[in-house]
Amino acid sequence: MFAIAIHGGAGTLSRAGTSADQEAAYLQGLESALDAGYSLLHEGGSSLDAVTAAVVSLEDNPLFNAGRGAVLSRDGLAELDASIMDGATLAAGAVCGLRHIRNPITLARRVMDRSPHVMLVGEGAEDFARNQGVELVSNEYFRTDIRQRQLHRLLQGAAEKENDLLAHGPASGIDAGMGTVGAVALDARGNVAAATSTGGMTGKRWGRVGDSPIIGAGTYASNGGCAVSATGHGEYFIRAVVAHDISAQMQYAKLTLAESVKNTLARMKALGGNGGVVAIAPDGEIVLDFNSEGMFRGVRSSGGRREVSIYR
Amino acid sequence: MFAIAIHGGAGTLSRAGTSADQEAAYLQGLESALDAGYSLLHEGGSSLDAVTAAVVSLEDNPLFNAGRGAVLSRDGLAELDASIMDGATLAAGAVCGLRHIRNPITLARRVMDRSPHVMLVGEGAEDFARNQGVELVSNEYFRTDIRQRQLHRLLQGAAEKENDLLAHGPASGIDAGMGTVGAVALDARGNVAAATSTGGMTGKRWGRVGDSPIIGAGTYASNGGCAVSATGHGEYFIRAVVAHDISAQMQYAKLTLAESVKNTLARMKALGGNGGVVAIAPDGEIVLDFNSEGMFRGVRSSGGRREVSIYR
Repeated sequence: MFAIAIHGGAGTLSRAGTSADQEAAYLQGLESALDAGYSLLHEGGSSLDAVTAAVVSLEDNPLFNAGRGAVLSRDGLAELDASIMDGATLAAGAVCGLRHIRNPITLARRVMDRSPHVMLVGEGAEDFARNQGVELVSNEYFRTDIRQRQLHRLLQGAAEKENDLLAHGPASGIDAGMGTVGAVALDARGNVAAATSTGGMTGKRWGRVGDSPIIGAGTYASNGGCAVSATGHGEYFIRAVVAHDISAQMQYAKLTLAESVKNTLARMKALGGNGGVVAIAPDGEIVLDFNSEGMFRGVRSSGGRREVSIYR
Repeated sequence: MFAIAIHGGAGTLSRAGTSADQEAAYLQGLESALDAGYSLLHEGGSSLDAVTAAVVSLEDNPLFNAGRGAVLSRDGLAELDASIMDGATLAAGAVCGLRHIRNPITLARRVMDRSPHVMLVGEGAEDFARNQGVELVSNEYFRTDIRQRQLHRLLQGAAEKENDLLAHGPASGIDAGMGTVGAVALDARGNVAAATSTGGMTGKRWGRVGDSPIIGAGTYASNGGCAVSATGHGEYFIRAVVAHDISAQMQYAKLTLAESVKNTLARMKALGGNGGVVAIAPDGEIVLDFNSEGMFRGVRSSGGRREVSIYR
């Protein structure tokens, strides 16, 4: 048994105002990311390599809020966060506040594999990248027209209800300016892994960091529990320690993965948050769940499961 | 019933090479921090205010690795991290990579109370501080002679075994250049809270961040479980999601606080880490535990418990 599940963000995705062409492009992006990860698993590769490959594919796709196509901060810059975790060893790597790293998830992986640290931040993280021979790119590489327009719209409204917009995010259309990409996988050796990458929240400022680079919140993996990658309103995912909370319920309360996910998302929603997760357990149970209107998501398993979808 | 427990860091504290005067100064620093927090609880104040006051006291004391007296990065700068969490509401605030904020814990508190965010990083976090009318200080405010000498010693040895030193930290004396300060409290209304603040690791670079500003790792509080503040080798505390893992075992496995702490520290030690925690549950159970040679620690309760200590 081996499998991979991915997400490309969750939020207020409305069918109204979204063309069939747009939907098809998102679904194709999800298929490509599944291809990248699943083909490695099929060749006997590790869950860690599979989630890395899937997230790189989503980072390179300008439709999703990670890597190229990331949303822009109030200063008009892309600021990228990512994290990765190996369920077999509990090794982890995380980076945040990057402005010049093409694939943040591969830098998170290098932090895990080649440094004594787990989390590196900002310019220091980019110094580490240089030290590792990683090519740095201009911030312009990440910026797309659609993200510039989203920022412009946000800033136009911002004078009136600044905190409200920052707290709740812009709320219309399929490209609503929040979101994250992520993947979880189970390989043939029974090891799980998780990876998450994001551009954060349109118009963010003050060095705001969400849950994506936080081990335990946006990303967690343990063969003793499960692997989780989260997407949604990051502040609530940090406060509910969502990814670890799901794994902990399997480990300590002996719940199934589906029950654990349901309980954690309910508690997070009670705090006021919305979003979703993809999760996989060593026994092969796979869950893609969310309390928002939609979540870009996909799954492929050696058991023959193969789906991509957006809405409920 | 109300109580407060604090720590001032854990690590390779050796009685040999430590004078009675030095020990007395550390113990006095712990007493002062307990005074600051306990007096608020005694007047009917909240656990949140008590942990804030205790941590401010430890930040202001140059003996401890937080605020003034923080260890220095490879560039010779103090870079400060802190986080705080309210067990009644699961509200949380965190800041990291600060260079000009006298009391990082009070900025973490402001992030929690006055922003829609949980975590702010680096210069952005300091812009938020300015926006809030917080006075910024020169980085020189934090730097003490002893920390300059520790950095110098580390860098002299660093040419030979650079990663090893960064991974394990310098390993001698009571002021060994690692450590954290923190507090947990239970107030008369039955609410728990936790707060943690640090200068990180001597000679750190690449924007390295440990567990102290990570909600779930270095700090966690929930009335449904317990409040925890951790200190030690941060990378392992992040990977083991120590603070939340302790609370989750109480909540999901129905273990006592002491059992939960013991299990989590054992798992963290199995990964290779060392350090300790202070923790308190809404029923009044208090635990100060560590797997290192010592931990600066203290506790005071309305039940009459009153101690400060360093070694096992």
